Amino acid sequence: MFNLISLKNGLENVDGFFFGGVSTGLKPNGDNDLGFIRADEPFMLSAKFTSNKFQAAPIVHFKRYEKGFKSNFLLLNSKNANAMTGQRGVDDIDELFKILNQKTPLINPIMSSTGVIGYRLNQEKIRSGFDKFDLNQKSSDSVARAIMTTDSFKKEIAFRVELENGKSFNIAAICKGAGMINPAFATMLCFILTDAAIPQSDMDELLKETTKYSFDAVSVDGDTSTNDTLMLLSSGKSGVYDKEAFKFALDKITLEMALNLVKDGEGSTKVVAFEVKGAASDDEASKAAKALSNSLLVKTAIFGEDPNWGRIASTIGASGIECDSTKLAIYYDDVLVYDKDHPELDEAREQKAHTVMKKDSYRIICDLGIANGKFTAYGCDLGHTYVKINADYRS
Amino acid sequence: MFNLISLKNGLENVDGFFFGGVSTGLKPNGDNDLGFIRADEPFMLSAKFTSNKFQAAPIVHFKRYEKGFKSNFLLLNSKNANAMTGQRGVDDIDELFKILNQKTPLINPIMSSTGVIGYRLNQEKIRSGFDKFDLNQKSSDSVARAIMTTDSFKKEIAFRVELENGKSFNIAAICKGAGMINPAFATMLCFILTDAAIPQSDMDELLKETTKYSFDAVSVDGDTSTNDTLMLLSSGKSGVYDKEAFKFALDKITLEMALNLVKDGEGSTKVVAFEVKGAASDDEASKAAKALSNSLLVKTAIFGEDPNWGRIASTIGASGIECDSTKLAIYYDDVLVYDKDHPELDEAREQKAHTVMKKDSYRIICDLGIANGKFTAYGCDLGHTYVKINADYRS
Repeated sequence: MFNLISLKNGLENVDGFFFGGVSTGLKPNGDNDLGFIRADEPFMLSAKFTSNKFQAAPIVHFKRYEKGFKSNFLLLNSKNANAMTGQRGVDDIDELFKILNQKTPLINPIMSSTGVIGYRLNQEKIRSGFDKFDLNQKSSDSVARAIMTTDSFKKEIAFRVELENGKSFNIAAICKGAGMINPAFATMLCFILTDAAIPQSDMDELLKETTKYSFDAVSVDGDTSTNDTLMLLSSGKSGVYDKEAFKFALDKITLEMALNLVKDGEGSTKVVAFEVKGAASDDEASKAAKALSNSLLVKTAIFGEDPNWGRIASTIGASGIECDSTKLAIYYDDVLVYDKDHPELDEAREQKAHTVMKKDSYRIICDLGIANGKFTAYGCDLGHTYVKINADYRS
Repeated sequence: MFNLISLKNGLENVDGFFFGGVSTGLKPNGDNDLGFIRADEPFMLSAKFTSNKFQAAPIVHFKRYEKGFKSNFLLLNSKNANAMTGQRGVDDIDELFKILNQKTPLINPIMSSTGVIGYRLNQEKIRSGFDKFDLNQKSSDSVARAIMTTDSFKKEIAFRVELENGKSFNIAAICKGAGMINPAFATMLCFILTDAAIPQSDMDELLKETTKYSFDAVSVDGDTSTNDTLMLLSSGKSGVYDKEAFKFALDKITLEMALNLVKDGEGSTKVVAFEVKGAASDDEASKAAKALSNSLLVKTAIFGEDPNWGRIASTIGASGIECDSTKLAIYYDDVLVYDKDHPELDEAREQKAHTVMKKDSYRIICDLGIANGKFTAYGCDLGHTYVKINADYRS
């Protein structure tokens, strides 16, 4: 048994780390664009990167280290992804760390970047940021803001995990998302810090598992970026650890962060949970649920608050899974909109379904009636704002 | 050797068929919504249907006939897809044909429908249309308009194929598209009529092949409907046939119709050819090209006329195919926007690329530099009008 206690603020709740962010002019409006997470003693870490074949320079740089390495410094920037920059992009990171090392001794330093693809980092601006860093700062707010791109709100979360024996450890995260969020590992940066005394092997195992029902289950627009990074950093400072409790807290953090990404998807006004059940297998349910969360016709119907369930049925039928129209039932929350005995939406049910769709958040449940496979994917609507944000020149 | 001669108008050019369309009130604005294509002597036919598992009632009805059957009547309607209507939907078709048979003797009659999913056909309105049919009419225009949904222009095409010996046959088609156009067989209705003396086996073989580089290569929004139908009807009346010439004409018709669908994609303002070459195989090239034509970030950048090639690279990298950023080159028409020696877009090249993107139609060429695999997919931009059309209640 254990208790999970939601805490105020973010990374400050975790012992053993320092973090902060500054403005270097990469963002012309003066918002923070450069940040760091560091520790006096090297932290353990586990990371999961984008499935995109063109991995950005910071990821290539990271992968030069031996598996299981410890680091004492993570440098973060927004506005420039340092992707498709070739060997020069990696050399630029080395160059930056050479400079930074003169200011603070670095051990296996690592970097994460987000922003536009295809341009080299502005060395001068980033170096100017080094002089502004307060390396003994613990400002979760300023580092969380430094990684934001088109995000409309800052994403922080923190929990204390209290074990039965009265001992406790902490786990907290910052995250950025907005566009390019897709199943098959979402497009985003997420850094989870903990002071739990977690072994490296558990870090690797639990990080790998935790994305399946969280970041891998959300979609904003079906695109997968070159820079996606999920990282778990552990100082071990609490001296306390319980695998089951840690897994519970980690899963909760990644699901909440994933839902935040959808909620803050570019132009998103609604978050919808696509619950597929009764499928031939969990895999088939996952295929159908993700097809629904990615369908433009479904997303625009959600935006238009139109209980046009035919688009739901059509998308399931096109997803390539086993299905049968005489066994299928579709609900919007608890309102039945289709089964074989109720194929047409009468006015009363249509009105009820429309009322559900007016909410900011609801469930679309598809019971395939075949076996017990189930999966829930999360998506958002697609409205004019998505087009506006993404059609604007070099957003 | 043979000559392909483009003809005015549409189906009128093909001997042996009668066709027309009327308004029954299914479309509230009084546009045509019911049509027919028929022949005095039963015609041969070959058909290809949607890959969607929930095939609409007209398709289920069609499949009850023995392979190789001949028919003398094809009934068409828009505004209602007769999909997800179960056995009742099929019974409704039988019921309609029972009535129609009293007016004109039917042999293996078939039907195609397009429109909203989930509602039974309005028998009364459709029956009222039967009384308006002029069964000896040859009006390609009125039947082409009867199958339009959100199409903004009517789609007709006709060719005469002249063989070396001076003999000739004709081939013509009508088509509807607009939304829900996707690779893996596009979402649309297309009826191709010919008076060529083509054998059934060639009809089946050539129809199957012709979609690969036409309807299977275009995308408007990545959705696949319940009703997609491509049908080839032959009266054989010309008594003339040449396989090579017929294949050439058929491929030209399906490619032109497919491009028309993209051009008329909901809210589409530009048609882009995504040419992927230098891939490990044609299949890999096809995967990448279709990923590009379906990417929301690519489609919105095209709408915004922004030569943000990073989104092209990122989409290729995410498509799961073999690729290498040091071998990749990206062009907009003949303007190089990326290769390893030109990773950043200087102002001059950016301006040139932007000029290409202002055109109504252009090519985005991705040379993967790996082997000789190639494929061209066709797509359109995604702008505010797509959202408007598809978010409107029950469009």
